[in-house]
Amino acid sequence: MKILVTGGAGFLGQQLTRALLDRGSLRLAAGDAKIDRIVCFDQTAGALQDPRVEYVTGDIADPATVRRLVDADTAVVVHLAAVVSGGAEADFDLGMRVNLDGTRLLLETCRAVGHQPRVLFASSIAVFGGDLPPVVTDATTPTPQGSYGIQKLIGELLVQDFSRKGYVDGRSVRVPTVVVRPGRPNAAASGFASGIIREPLSGVEAILPVEPSTKMWVASPRAVVKMFLHALELTPQDWGWNRSLNLPGLVVSMEEELAALREAAGEQAVALVRHQPDEAVLKLVRTWAATFDTSRALAMGFRADADFAAIVRAYIEDNPDAIRLPGVRR
Amino acid sequence: MKILVTGGAGFLGQQLTRALLDRGSLRLAAGDAKIDRIVCFDQTAGALQDPRVEYVTGDIADPATVRRLVDADTAVVVHLAAVVSGGAEADFDLGMRVNLDGTRLLLETCRAVGHQPRVLFASSIAVFGGDLPPVVTDATTPTPQGSYGIQKLIGELLVQDFSRKGYVDGRSVRVPTVVVRPGRPNAAASGFASGIIREPLSGVEAILPVEPSTKMWVASPRAVVKMFLHALELTPQDWGWNRSLNLPGLVVSMEEELAALREAAGEQAVALVRHQPDEAVLKLVRTWAATFDTSRALAMGFRADADFAAIVRAYIEDNPDAIRLPGVRR
Repeated sequence: MKILVTGGAGFLGQQLTRALLDRGSLRLAAGDAKIDRIVCFDQTAGALQDPRVEYVTGDIADPATVRRLVDADTAVVVHLAAVVSGGAEADFDLGMRVNLDGTRLLLETCRAVGHQPRVLFASSIAVFGGDLPPVVTDATTPTPQGSYGIQKLIGELLVQDFSRKGYVDGRSVRVPTVVVRPGRPNAAASGFASGIIREPLSGVEAILPVEPSTKMWVASPRAVVKMFLHALELTPQDWGWNRSLNLPGLVVSMEEELAALREAAGEQAVALVRHQPDEAVLKLVRTWAATFDTSRALAMGFRADADFAAIVRAYIEDNPDAIRLPGVRR
Repeated sequence: MKILVTGGAGFLGQQLTRALLDRGSLRLAAGDAKIDRIVCFDQTAGALQDPRVEYVTGDIADPATVRRLVDADTAVVVHLAAVVSGGAEADFDLGMRVNLDGTRLLLETCRAVGHQPRVLFASSIAVFGGDLPPVVTDATTPTPQGSYGIQKLIGELLVQDFSRKGYVDGRSVRVPTVVVRPGRPNAAASGFASGIIREPLSGVEAILPVEPSTKMWVASPRAVVKMFLHALELTPQDWGWNRSLNLPGLVVSMEEELAALREAAGEQAVALVRHQPDEAVLKLVRTWAATFDTSRALAMGFRADADFAAIVRAYIEDNPDAIRLPGVRR
């Protein structure tokens, strides 16, 4: 069988592709299905090379392009391609085009092949915002306060209805803030939560634009990839009619992040983090939810990271070339 | 100023247009604004004739058509045009085209004129469904169980974000089942709630496809038109950031409807209603919410009908030509 990963050249797409290759198969309705080919669709090709991996580049909102991505062998689609929060807020039309039109086009394409592909949609906890309760539960109403969250929530609703109609077998997971995100900073407003770990470990200064007491709901790339695979392997019955789910994570303050950084790389690392409040970021972060009760996901077998120190250790293990500060414990 | 009413030839559009003409002005930000022109957009022209009313016919999802509907004088847009529940379920693509693409196109057109028109979007209690609490409150998460509800909820999210961005001054109201809907039966799955009053009063047999104990959340056309005007005249501050609202209504069982029919037109009328269960309708109706706590709307000044007998009396008053059963109290 064939798997399509949109956003497949991004860091999460690459880690997911690596994990799929390592497994070699996925447990689907008919039993273990061998992975013959993974199509990684993105704006550029990725670094990961394997005979089973094919890179296709193009525009996720272009019908002719997307129609070529899904065929009779495509049993699984993982839809990661998106304009991130800061980007969708800065360029409304681009966000609508990629996050809404792209998602709808992909679902229509899956519908057109007629064999009900299993579709995993990476949504986000950015669907929550505004007047939130202290703990967000499975019953909390999503009320996004930004275009990114709005567009992700619309994507979920489309996945929900396309699944109910039997056009796809869809699942939407609301991903916590992914920390530590490797590579260069992106336009996500939450980027500092990764930056204050990643930059010091590579010997570079980082800015903390919010109060150190600011809490966030986070998960490591490793945990997220594992949860993606779990979401794909659950049966339609496991999911039931409600195809949207808040994923487990850890609630962590920026202080706790810095403590874990200190533990891994010493005071020299923490000294590279400069506190410089940014009103624009603060305003956005205040509307985010930090603490979740993810009972439904836990009952379905999803698991978060053990603690934040483990997240930092995993980052160091997975990104040896990015660790340039001397004396970091490996 | 100019007002655009999409779905303006429909019965609700016509009653709203009549009410706007009778008033002659709307209380907007700058004070009372005189209504110079009402553009009623629909697939056909309506019966109501007035020098201030202009009918434009066409396709709500056609960009060239919709762009011509909104100009520098258009201060208010009321978006009623929609494919109803049964129709959107039977023809998925038509529902997506009219209910989603049409709504988005209208919002984009309002954004393009640049003066932030006040937009009222008629959403529906069909956004609620599935595993609902006994009483739906302002905090209950919308979980639509049909394509119509999904598309209406997506429309709300677009209205929400276009308002937050300052592109329009939008308000979405979730309209209860409108009873008694005059005219011919339409494709709405809830149509029987009107049919069992309307048909007997015109001397025709009606089918009740659900248990007589079935309860629904209803409002009369008169009450809905009043609530539309109120929704338009509230300030952006009255609305706050949350631009979606459950409208007040009455909870009424089909038995209670028949009792009101008996009161107005005697046993002869009730004898024209035949109970004939329809599994398809039953299945859908079971997922609907019947009882609401609409505290927020009540605090904002929205009011429901007094009781169901008043709804029947209003129907008889407003539709004298449709009452053909002898001996109906007027």
